[in-house]
Amino acid sequence: MIEEMLRFNRRFVETKEYEKYKTSKYPDKKIAIVTCMDTRLVELLPAALGIKNGDVKMIKNAGGTITNPFDSTVRSLLVAIYELGVTEVMIIGHTGCGVQGMDANEMLNLMRSRGISDEHINLMMHCGIDLKSWLHGFEDTHAAVEETVDLVRNHPLIPTDVTVKGYIMDSLTGELSAL
Amino acid sequence: MIEEMLRFNRRFVETKEYEKYKTSKYPDKKIAIVTCMDTRLVELLPAALGIKNGDVKMIKNAGGTITNPFDSTVRSLLVAIYELGVTEVMIIGHTGCGVQGMDANEMLNLMRSRGISDEHINLMMHCGIDLKSWLHGFEDTHAAVEETVDLVRNHPLIPTDVTVKGYIMDSLTGELSAL
Repeated sequence: MIEEMLRFNRRFVETKEYEKYKTSKYPDKKIAIVTCMDTRLVELLPAALGIKNGDVKMIKNAGGTITNPFDSTVRSLLVAIYELGVTEVMIIGHTGCGVQGMDANEMLNLMRSRGISDEHINLMMHCGIDLKSWLHGFEDTHAAVEETVDLVRNHPLIPTDVTVKGYIMDSLTGELSAL
Repeated sequence: MIEEMLRFNRRFVETKEYEKYKTSKYPDKKIAIVTCMDTRLVELLPAALGIKNGDVKMIKNAGGTITNPFDSTVRSLLVAIYELGVTEVMIIGHTGCGVQGMDANEMLNLMRSRGISDEHINLMMHCGIDLKSWLHGFEDTHAAVEETVDLVRNHPLIPTDVTVKGYIMDSLTGELSAL
């Protein structure tokens, strides 16, 4: 699959299709979006919000959540705000998110069935890695987005003049609902 | 700016423009991509690789880096691999990345000038948060991608049959070069 993508890429460059995407590294809309890595949002989310190349900083992980206030998501927001002029942050969850109801024990069983040994899993836990809570998803998407909004809004390193808002996107229609 | 986006969204849904993006949550290409939140890649990266809605899981943060082996990026990869059938992982850095040369002291000064107090910064450091290393970028994009590839490839919870490859994308032309 990667090989096919690389062939596509060579044609894209040769035919100069990139010319219509020219822009700078500064986000024209001064917005950063934290959202989910979900397959259904890759094209749908920018299309449904009218986002063009150059408009926003796009931060994505499983669920669009922040697993720790000093993780790479908050670090990314700090770069966006302090270095790149972002003034508004949108946290966008979505319907039918795979992280909703994600269960750590089930995930650990899937790992064992793919050859990760119990010895290694136990060793990590003995080293203080809390796999059970790290691999646990959220119960309710609405509450998870609300929690992330609160975390960003009250983060001690985020300036108080930054607007932080939460939304849920319909994974089929792209419709955005404010929290 | 957000208001403008919401108006666009209402028209998008009303005119059923979403119909061409219909897909499931399983990535058709069985690929997860870890890349940068950069403004220049939002439309360019999918276009330059021929990625359609439904094809891949897209994980994005500042620099496309992993700040900790148990952070949200690795957690996202685990969900993609164990729950959603991903078999190939692409780590894609890009030219002119803002995280290259990012300096923690400069960022802390920007924070102070926006009203974050020295008292709070010092308190966090006393609580064991290593802001200096967390806010430090990488020196060399090539080396940073290589490091991330190694970290994912050798992560104790990633199965050995998953392919992990590193690339640099030209931020202007979208050209992908393998490491």
